[in-house]
Amino acid sequence: MQIPQPLKDLIESGRDAHLVTMNKDGSPHVTIVWIGLENDEIVCAHLPRNQKVRNIERDSRVVISLEASTKSDLGLTEYAVIYGEARITQGGAPQLLQKLAEVYIGPGVKFPPMDNPPSGYITRVKVTRIEGVGPWTGRNV
Amino acid sequence: MQIPQPLKDLIESGRDAHLVTMNKDGSPHVTIVWIGLENDEIVCAHLPRNQKVRNIERDSRVVISLEASTKSDLGLTEYAVIYGEARITQGGAPQLLQKLAEVYIGPGVKFPPMDNPPSGYITRVKVTRIEGVGPWTGRNV
Repeated sequence: MQIPQPLKDLIESGRDAHLVTMNKDGSPHVTIVWIGLENDEIVCAHLPRNQKVRNIERDSRVVISLEASTKSDLGLTEYAVIYGEARITQGGAPQLLQKLAEVYIGPGVKFPPMDNPPSGYITRVKVTRIEGVGPWTGRNV
Repeated sequence: MQIPQPLKDLIESGRDAHLVTMNKDGSPHVTIVWIGLENDEIVCAHLPRNQKVRNIERDSRVVISLEASTKSDLGLTEYAVIYGEARITQGGAPQLLQKLAEVYIGPGVKFPPMDNPPSGYITRVKVTRIEGVGPWTGRNV
């Protein structure tokens, strides 16, 4: 599905994203990642072939949740829960991390900090369903 | 397991918590909840018997992730990912929500806002494993 503009704005606003992937035994695995947008897909980068990369290679179901900086009428934090289908592509992780670091840490930062990082992996998520509280769902409780 | 003091402090600091439960088909379900501590268990409250209550009644596996307000040496947000076994108890939700609202919204707020709310449900989570970045794991990347 197309990502509505208010959600695109949230995705690109530098808010930490909670990424759920599925372990081999069917239990959920959660880490926090930096996210961005490329070609209407949500992207995040990984230097090592870590647990979440291996999980997505086996099971494409992911959930990404992130908080907005805005509050609903009741004073609750607005947030998005993005359900999607993910795939892994090889390479390009340092370049994407550098681009995201400028948003998440600040302009001029060098990230990853080491010289000659591995080319890594990129997770690319097609959005299939949007939940949460905010203009991306029209719900305010 | 015992919850280490730095994580207890984080849990009681009024940070929004991302709660993962398991749907009937084995897919993950995510919402944001307010959390607190009671008897070394993490608690959250629900007025209706919603999807997460029904999910936990069927499958006790949950994950709670939340961001700290502190940064690691690399400038990454510190956070906790708490794996646990949850159970549902009936009643007491308005009282717990009122207590949590004083932390999450502010002193003196009336929450839930309606008169005569239903008695609801409480989720109680025994912690089985702690991940993330911060003093609760000793990891800083």
